[in-house]
Amino acid sequence: MKLQIYSNRLSQPCRAVIIFCKLNGIEFEEIDVSLAKGQQFKAEFKAINPMARVPAIVHGSYKLFESHAILIYLACTFPGVPDHWYPADIQQRAKIHSVLDWHHSNLRLGEAGYVLDSRLRPLLGGKLNLEAAAVNEKLLSKSLAKIETFWLRGDGKFLLGNFQPSIADLSLVCEIMQLEIVPEIDRNRILSPHKKVLQWMEDTKNATNPYFDELHSFILELKAVLKADSSVGVTEETKQRSQAVLSKL
Amino acid sequence: MKLQIYSNRLSQPCRAVIIFCKLNGIEFEEIDVSLAKGQQFKAEFKAINPMARVPAIVHGSYKLFESHAILIYLACTFPGVPDHWYPADIQQRAKIHSVLDWHHSNLRLGEAGYVLDSRLRPLLGGKLNLEAAAVNEKLLSKSLAKIETFWLRGDGKFLLGNFQPSIADLSLVCEIMQLEIVPEIDRNRILSPHKKVLQWMEDTKNATNPYFDELHSFILELKAVLKADSSVGVTEETKQRSQAVLSKL
Repeated sequence: MKLQIYSNRLSQPCRAVIIFCKLNGIEFEEIDVSLAKGQQFKAEFKAINPMARVPAIVHGSYKLFESHAILIYLACTFPGVPDHWYPADIQQRAKIHSVLDWHHSNLRLGEAGYVLDSRLRPLLGGKLNLEAAAVNEKLLSKSLAKIETFWLRGDGKFLLGNFQPSIADLSLVCEIMQLEIVPEIDRNRILSPHKKVLQWMEDTKNATNPYFDELHSFILELKAVLKADSSVGVTEETKQRSQAVLSKL
Repeated sequence: MKLQIYSNRLSQPCRAVIIFCKLNGIEFEEIDVSLAKGQQFKAEFKAINPMARVPAIVHGSYKLFESHAILIYLACTFPGVPDHWYPADIQQRAKIHSVLDWHHSNLRLGEAGYVLDSRLRPLLGGKLNLEAAAVNEKLLSKSLAKIETFWLRGDGKFLLGNFQPSIADLSLVCEIMQLEIVPEIDRNRILSPHKKVLQWMEDTKNATNPYFDELHSFILELKAVLKADSSVGVTEETKQRSQAVLSKL
């Protein structure tokens, strides 16, 4: 009953789930769902997740989607996952839930929307929407400020002042890593005011390597292709080159 | 160490938390945070929840916010809460997490945005935004269709085909109840295509009464005041009358 993970490495929640499995010695089969080819909308995948989103898992006859639910399920199901990822203590666990719930309507909403509207849409067959991107950038910046001033308070290096990372660190840092594919000038404008966030990203990366780098090599490849272009769009040549990168998944 | 709940009954997540406590005999003190007066932005409340949102709880020296995290914490902390609210079985529990995670970026985002932009903003000192309301209505309708065709599949009356309600039923139904304060014609347009959703709302209400009705009496009072006005706005008189209702909290 090997775990199957339906995934695409362009998706930040997918990367979090796969890094978690690799770190914790959870064996799995990674099944690519090509977002560039729209495979998530095909009947075969919608039988796994009718919401047409990755990641989704199949574990024996059991199916599950939503990355936070998957991370919690894996932490509770597979033996040997260290407690710091998803603590058994009810109060500590509830704080992790609080971060993850907050994430949905704040960092995730702002960041994913910003990257999609300012950069990814043309690569996935749509159009840029710079007005929507501006609204999402505000929410993204506000969310990063809350991480800097509130969630990273305390003695430890990680969220909630913890000394070791939890699934919340992994989920949120994988989200912010998506900013690698926007132009450097935009990424710097958004991230550079938040020194503790930058240090925490580095600490999370170090705590989860070599898998963190392995899972992010794909978006760094995409970044390299997109690099020449400015924030107001991508040229036709870049678009074709980046679609070639995307079609690998 | 009596539980304190910082709450406002205009807020659907607050209502879910309070109904849950009353149903399960959890003693608490309800502390009103007036959203009409902006009390959520005051230093006193931000010491409880720096995100300036209700609900938030204080339990001894422990503070927590985000309603789903709170519901899970209460179910795990207070003795005697029946298992169906938040099952101990890992696979059943993970399905509840999946519904709740999905809720954030779908039903919650669409519904809360629609009601705020189409109805509530003028009552809270802002302006209507009918363009944003139209976008949110689409997401809301799509979410209701997913509840109808997917989450309510199975033999039981409740989400995931369960025979008894979980915290997910409570959270999602309290959310949809917010549509009581939009004009009847709009509410019918949005809800009437979804017959299973309507039946499930009735079943959840019956399973959680008398507390469900008690907690929703406030928005029904607001509904009565707003009733005369159409979907394109509220008159100055209605605005004043509804602000009088809102200021009670």
